[in-house]
Amino acid sequence: MVSTHILSAYDDELKFLSRRISEMGGLAEQMVSDAVRALVNSDAALAQKVISDDVILDAAEREVGDKAIITIARRQPVAADLREIIGSIRIASDLERVGDLGKNTAKRVIAVQGSGVPRKLARGIEHLSELALVQLKEVLDVYTNRSAEKANAIRERDEEIDAMYTSLFRELLTYMMEDPRNITSCTHLLFCAKNIERIGDHATNIAETIYYMTTGAQPEGERPKDDTSNTVGAVTE
Amino acid sequence: MVSTHILSAYDDELKFLSRRISEMGGLAEQMVSDAVRALVNSDAALAQKVISDDVILDAAEREVGDKAIITIARRQPVAADLREIIGSIRIASDLERVGDLGKNTAKRVIAVQGSGVPRKLARGIEHLSELALVQLKEVLDVYTNRSAEKANAIRERDEEIDAMYTSLFRELLTYMMEDPRNITSCTHLLFCAKNIERIGDHATNIAETIYYMTTGAQPEGERPKDDTSNTVGAVTE
Repeated sequence: MVSTHILSAYDDELKFLSRRISEMGGLAEQMVSDAVRALVNSDAALAQKVISDDVILDAAEREVGDKAIITIARRQPVAADLREIIGSIRIASDLERVGDLGKNTAKRVIAVQGSGVPRKLARGIEHLSELALVQLKEVLDVYTNRSAEKANAIRERDEEIDAMYTSLFRELLTYMMEDPRNITSCTHLLFCAKNIERIGDHATNIAETIYYMTTGAQPEGERPKDDTSNTVGAVTE
Repeated sequence: MVSTHILSAYDDELKFLSRRISEMGGLAEQMVSDAVRALVNSDAALAQKVISDDVILDAAEREVGDKAIITIARRQPVAADLREIIGSIRIASDLERVGDLGKNTAKRVIAVQGSGVPRKLARGIEHLSELALVQLKEVLDVYTNRSAEKANAIRERDEEIDAMYTSLFRELLTYMMEDPRNITSCTHLLFCAKNIERIGDHATNIAETIYYMTTGAQPEGERPKDDTSNTVGAVTE
C-alpha cells in the first residue's frame, strides 16, 4: 500500500512537470503570435501584453527547474525517468527563450510604428512566423506523445524556415537600398525576422531533447542550426 | 575502505565535470576572440578555424550532459551536489551557445570582406567584444572559485555591454544612411554586434547558475536581459 502511494505521488510529480511544460508551450506560442500581430498591425497595447506575459514564462521556468531538482533528490530516478526530468529542465529553458524572442519582437513594435512598412514585407514576417509556430505546435504535440520518430522528422524541417528567413533578409536589404529612410525600421524588421528564425531553432532543440528523453540517444547527424543569410552579399564585393 | 574508494571515484566524477566546463569556457573565449579578429582583419582562414572549432564545443556539451546523467543515476546526489551537477549541464549549454555565436560571427567574415568597413566601426566591435570577453573570463574564474557574491556582481555589469551595443547600433545605422552601398556589410556587422551582446547575456546566465549552485536560491531582482536598441528610431517617426 505504502509503496503504491509513493509511486503514485511520484507519478503526480512527473505529470506536474509535463503539464507545466505544455502550459509554458501554449503561452510561448501565444506570445509569438501576438508579437507578430502587434508588429503587423502597429498594436502597441498588444505588444505591451506580450512584454508582461514574459514574466509569467520566466517564473514557470524557475518553477520547473526547482520542482525537477526536488523530484530527483526525493525519488532518485534512473534511466528513462531521469532523462525525462532532465529533459523537462532543458525544454523549459528553450520555451523561456522563445518567450524572450517574442518579447524582443514586441519591443520593436514602437520603433517600426508609423514607418509605413510595405504590406509585402509585413506578410513575409507573418508567413515566417506561421512556419515557426507550426514547428513549435508540432513539437509540443510530439512532447505529449513522446514519439522519437516524429521528433526526428521535425528536426529535419527547420531548413524550410532558414531558407525563408534568408529570402526575407535579402528583400529587406533591397528595400533599405531603395530608400535610406527605410533603414531604421527595416533593421528592426531584420531583427524580428531573425528572432522568428531562432524560434525554429528552439523548436528543433526541443525535438532533439524529446528524442533523447525517449531513446536515451542523441539524434544522428548534424543539423543545420544556422541560417544562410551570411552568404548574402558575400559574392558582390 | 570501500566507501572511501566510492567517495573518491564520485569526487573524480564531479571534478571531471568542472574540468570539462573550464576547458569548454577556454575554447569558447578563444573562438569569440578569433572570430572578432577574423572580422576586423578580413582573415578568412581564421574564420574557418572558428567554424571548425565549434564541432569540438558541441561534442563537449554532449559529453558533459551524458556524464552528468550517469553521475546522478550512479550517485543519487542531493542538495548542493545535485545542484552542482545540474548546474554543469546548464553552464555547458550556455558555453555551447557562446561558441555558436562565435561561429555565426565568423561566418559573416566573407560577407563583410572587402567592403571597406571604417576603422572606427571595426574598433567599436572589437571594444564590445573585449567587454564581453572580460565578462566571460570573470564568470569562468567565479565558476572555479564558486563565489556567490562575485557571481552577483557580474550579473549587474551586463548593462555596460548593452549600452555599448546600443550606441554601436546607432552608429551603424548612421553609416548605412550616409551611403546605401554600406547597407549589406553594415547589416552583417549589426548581427555580429548583436552576437557579442548575447555573449554577455550568456555570461550573465552562467553567473546566475553559479549563484544558484552555491546558495540554492535564485538571485534577487530582475536583471536587464535585453539591449535597448529597440528604442532607436522609436521617437523619430
